[in-house]
Amino acid sequence: MTPTRNASEIGNPSDALAQSASCPSARETRAIIEHIRPSIDGGRFPIKRTPGEIVAVTADVFADGHDVVAAVLRDRRVSGFGVRDSGIPSEIHPWRETTMTLVAPGTDEWAGQFDVSAVGWHEYSIVAWVDRFQTWRRDVGIKWSAGQDVSLELLEGALLVREAAGRADHTANGHDDAAALLERADTLSDSTSIADRVPVALDDVLASLMFTHADRSRATMSEVLRVRVDRERARFGSWYEMFPRSAGPDQNRSGTFREAARELPRIADLGFDIVYLPPIHPIGTSFRKGRNNTLVAGPDDPGSPWAIGSAAGGHTAIEPGLGTFEYVEWFRSEAERLGLEVALDLAWQCSPDHPWVTEHPEWFRHRPDGSIKYAENPPKKYQDIYPFDFESEDWRALWQALLDVTLFWIDRGVKIFRVDNPHTKTLGFWEWMIDHVHQRDGDVIFLSEAFTRPKLMRYLAKAGFTQSYSYFTWRNSKAELVEYFTELTTTESREYLRPNLFANTPDILHEYLQHGGCAAFEARLLLAATLGANYGIYSGFELCEGRAVKPGSEEYADSEKYQYKKWDWDRTGHISELIARVNHVRRAHAALQFDRTLQFHDTDNPEIIAYSKTSPDGADVVLTVVSLDPHHMQHGHIRVPYVGADEAYTVHDLIDDNRYAWRGDWNYVRFDPDFRQGHILWLPKRRT
Amino acid sequence: MTPTRNASEIGNPSDALAQSASCPSARETRAIIEHIRPSIDGGRFPIKRTPGEIVAVTADVFADGHDVVAAVLRDRRVSGFGVRDSGIPSEIHPWRETTMTLVAPGTDEWAGQFDVSAVGWHEYSIVAWVDRFQTWRRDVGIKWSAGQDVSLELLEGALLVREAAGRADHTANGHDDAAALLERADTLSDSTSIADRVPVALDDVLASLMFTHADRSRATMSEVLRVRVDRERARFGSWYEMFPRSAGPDQNRSGTFREAARELPRIADLGFDIVYLPPIHPIGTSFRKGRNNTLVAGPDDPGSPWAIGSAAGGHTAIEPGLGTFEYVEWFRSEAERLGLEVALDLAWQCSPDHPWVTEHPEWFRHRPDGSIKYAENPPKKYQDIYPFDFESEDWRALWQALLDVTLFWIDRGVKIFRVDNPHTKTLGFWEWMIDHVHQRDGDVIFLSEAFTRPKLMRYLAKAGFTQSYSYFTWRNSKAELVEYFTELTTTESREYLRPNLFANTPDILHEYLQHGGCAAFEARLLLAATLGANYGIYSGFELCEGRAVKPGSEEYADSEKYQYKKWDWDRTGHISELIARVNHVRRAHAALQFDRTLQFHDTDNPEIIAYSKTSPDGADVVLTVVSLDPHHMQHGHIRVPYVGADEAYTVHDLIDDNRYAWRGDWNYVRFDPDFRQGHILWLPKRRT
Repeated sequence: MTPTRNASEIGNPSDALAQSASCPSARETRAIIEHIRPSIDGGRFPIKRTPGEIVAVTADVFADGHDVVAAVLRDRRVSGFGVRDSGIPSEIHPWRETTMTLVAPGTDEWAGQFDVSAVGWHEYSIVAWVDRFQTWRRDVGIKWSAGQDVSLELLEGALLVREAAGRADHTANGHDDAAALLERADTLSDSTSIADRVPVALDDVLASLMFTHADRSRATMSEVLRVRVDRERARFGSWYEMFPRSAGPDQNRSGTFREAARELPRIADLGFDIVYLPPIHPIGTSFRKGRNNTLVAGPDDPGSPWAIGSAAGGHTAIEPGLGTFEYVEWFRSEAERLGLEVALDLAWQCSPDHPWVTEHPEWFRHRPDGSIKYAENPPKKYQDIYPFDFESEDWRALWQALLDVTLFWIDRGVKIFRVDNPHTKTLGFWEWMIDHVHQRDGDVIFLSEAFTRPKLMRYLAKAGFTQSYSYFTWRNSKAELVEYFTELTTTESREYLRPNLFANTPDILHEYLQHGGCAAFEARLLLAATLGANYGIYSGFELCEGRAVKPGSEEYADSEKYQYKKWDWDRTGHISELIARVNHVRRAHAALQFDRTLQFHDTDNPEIIAYSKTSPDGADVVLTVVSLDPHHMQHGHIRVPYVGADEAYTVHDLIDDNRYAWRGDWNYVRFDPDFRQGHILWLPKRRT
Repeated sequence: MTPTRNASEIGNPSDALAQSASCPSARETRAIIEHIRPSIDGGRFPIKRTPGEIVAVTADVFADGHDVVAAVLRDRRVSGFGVRDSGIPSEIHPWRETTMTLVAPGTDEWAGQFDVSAVGWHEYSIVAWVDRFQTWRRDVGIKWSAGQDVSLELLEGALLVREAAGRADHTANGHDDAAALLERADTLSDSTSIADRVPVALDDVLASLMFTHADRSRATMSEVLRVRVDRERARFGSWYEMFPRSAGPDQNRSGTFREAARELPRIADLGFDIVYLPPIHPIGTSFRKGRNNTLVAGPDDPGSPWAIGSAAGGHTAIEPGLGTFEYVEWFRSEAERLGLEVALDLAWQCSPDHPWVTEHPEWFRHRPDGSIKYAENPPKKYQDIYPFDFESEDWRALWQALLDVTLFWIDRGVKIFRVDNPHTKTLGFWEWMIDHVHQRDGDVIFLSEAFTRPKLMRYLAKAGFTQSYSYFTWRNSKAELVEYFTELTTTESREYLRPNLFANTPDILHEYLQHGGCAAFEARLLLAATLGANYGIYSGFELCEGRAVKPGSEEYADSEKYQYKKWDWDRTGHISELIARVNHVRRAHAALQFDRTLQFHDTDNPEIIAYSKTSPDGADVVLTVVSLDPHHMQHGHIRVPYVGADEAYTVHDLIDDNRYAWRGDWNYVRFDPDFRQGHILWLPKRRT
């Protein structure tokens, strides 16, 4: 499916009918190219990769009759491409070509692959044609083997080779292919014996030359498909979410960015790559929420950072309690020095005190009494939040303003954004905005915080989001995990949706964590960090903080969303060492830096889950085994991949450096919640 | 995938990239429409139906946020549409609209359906929008139930209703919707109590009026998809293939069409709908094949009808032995009088004696010695056949000539063509030719005789062939039949590929028939006639003629392809009564006239196959049970669909009129090859 049109075009004559019947010139091309994979919605959306990754392409290619078909996969970079109306010219690099091969006789399925190297856009397509020379060569071989006279065939071949020489004249690849072809054409048609000339006809060098200069005048070209190439961090990264205001000396005032910067060495030591901050902008006072999400704030309650905007400014200002732009820049540069990247939050909504409410009332929806419509999910009301009206008559200016906010922060060195509730904004806006941002800077990463229905989540990923929050927090049993991650890693969505497995968020403290104690946090950490090349935790996770605001709620008690907080990072029962170790293992093992190779393995205990990942080069295989039961000892057998039934080998636990002598495929494991919740095992190199 | 382009367009700037970034005006539309089903290759090809059939459409439809989405399925006839460059204007009928409904909460999957009534082209598409009134109505209901003040909401609603009244002004549907809406808008905003006004807000009549006049200014319209509507005979028909030249007095001369017409009452009595004739054109003498496909013909051998063309003419002439055009017309009118339609063969190839060989040497491929390239499949040579060169420089004239041949016979009343080996001609040619023929006459049916690889067979069906020969002759075991017919009736191909199950052909006498005696013919007849709404036999089948030309061959001994033949239709062991009975049952039972409802049922004997078909209205259920073993008695139990475990009921054998008292789902059957090979059972009406 695809190009959707707006209502004004509905009356036009039928494009679909016209298209099918058009283009008689294309009808004389004999090769058919169908069902290119990967291809998202017929090319409407790009697939995604990072530099160095492979795109393995298959397609159905065939032609009428029994002639030999040839197909090449073409790919090229497109630099500087962005939005058609941007006026910025694209630089389209030359096509590279890879010969495709038939996957198996009779299938008509062809395969080829290419790699991508540069961040930005990349394109691929397939060109296929009926190859007269290859057909001729096959037939000469058959006829000669059958003892038939091929003298006329050799003359036909000479003509084909001579024609190719004509095409070769116009190439400049350093070799004189034209001369080489003409020489062979002469030989094929000279007066020596047929037996002497047949080997020339069947020669591999000639075949190769002829393929290089094949007659493609009637070639069929497929649609051009796109790859969005993001930087490596889009594929692999460990996120840490923190409230900088919690870095103050006590719970009575906001920490500043200078104070928050003192947390960075600890976060770096934990092995994280990205520090993600909730909104850092001025917080409104109208209808400000109090501690524990109460409707009335106390005089000292700081309010929710997502109620953006006050007299101090809006989306391009800093909450005064956090300090100045200089403080922010200090924080960012400290993070950078420690190998950490800062991610900011994009939350397209306003507090009633946001400057835009008075400057641009047209960007909000008004009620018959002149008031602005606050957010609601009837019967619930969120009076501290004004949503933007994406259906405003002035939507173009609104969109531009939101893009400008994003570019404002990009210009201040921020290259990663976590986007709040993108599924509640016009979806076409995101496609437009992310396109435009990438036009400016292809390194920018957008993480979609959309916890909604599957098709809507997938659409956001297709429309441009680099990464997506997932259902991981709500997938806790073995069956749930296997089903969900099989979907994520084996269906088409793997081509465009990169899950980022947050183990908790300020809004999601799953009951598994509330009731499972530290063992539950250990289990979920191991799962998140090994099931997902991208994963994250929200601060407090390392302390096994599991108190909910009330029974049945996934909200934290005394949530940082509504108050200043002072954490004791050394309090009893923290799991910082495990986190640091796991993040170290992730950095050392390429197997854990990709999602697609995930494979689940049999276990004989439903509380024990086992799965492996393999690096793209096949050299690194990591087997993770986790007990999902945080309360009881669990033991059982797991089936190790790639090993023979009686093979002896050593597995190496990358967490605690233990080594185990195992034999055969089924091996015993035992997990005691007081001692360990899982293994991350390095397997001997896979034999192929 | 789709629009393939020819090589000359390869250098153009990237369409795919440009498209994705274009059309900002479409981005403000909020509804997303994805994955419309059925849709063949993103709309590149039409689905197929016959008048009266339903098209059930589903799609993923959703929007951002929590607003209510509305979707309608639109369909319309397009009369007179054909080829863009034909100059013949299309008449596009107004859209009909059907409200789509959500299949299940949370799925974002919507469904709707329409029926088609007229032969020709039909189009469908989906329009979806975020419905502000429905959203408002839902929210007012929730808020009112929760005891909230909805006074402002009622004023908002009044505005929405008043806006709709403005749109209704411009409609002319016989009712004064505008007045009705204005009256309600006044009520919503008057000074009566809220409690009095809420029922007006939630009133169903208002909801219906508001849906009729919904604000679609920001609606999203999907691509337009196509339905090819063929006449009923495309979906349901019984074919009989015969060589008219075998209708002579003996085996020494060709029968004429006048003599062949005398066979028609017999064929009509057998219950067939279509009489298909191999090529009826003059047969070449150069390299003419002799009896039993020998390389040298005897002086009296008539040659293969597929070696078309002699001094007497080509594809628009009649083989002199068969008579004149008047004879053909007599045959056709006799057939018509008996309720039979005549199908001719289109075989795009020439004997060396065809007039075109000298008139249009450019339509053939030439060898270096000046000779024309004959057909070959190295090392095999077919010197009696010259294939056309579809890559000829003069291909446009060749295509036109072949179209003209087809139109020539259409002008002489032939509306059904069996097309010989279409998979060996440029595939785009067929799409072009069939389009053009349907431009002239939408009733024309083309049966594709392509026994080749699955994707190529499917492509021909997509490109326009009305029906397709299938692999049925080579699917003889229960597992083979279940697998193949499950594929044909449950995968996407059912939308465009209508199989025609020939039980034998002049080229295919399967060894199952060679070795199974009459019981084998009975089994294959029952299977073909009940598995396929379209099926056929080639004459001799009714005589259980099973002699092959040699062991291991599927060719008939003394094949009619190479000699005159005199059949004795009354010879011992014929199964004419069974054929007549089965064809009668097919005509009487709608269940057997459609393919899509096929369902296989369990049996406890692998030699016994059971399946049912149901008419689209659900009223007619026919259960077929066949023993696949032509040699031994087989018995066992079959599982009857739709009946309770202890239910008592009567099944009625439509072949021999026997009735059986059955109970529960599993029931006993027994087949003795000497007595019966299967049942066609009428089941009590399905309870729903």
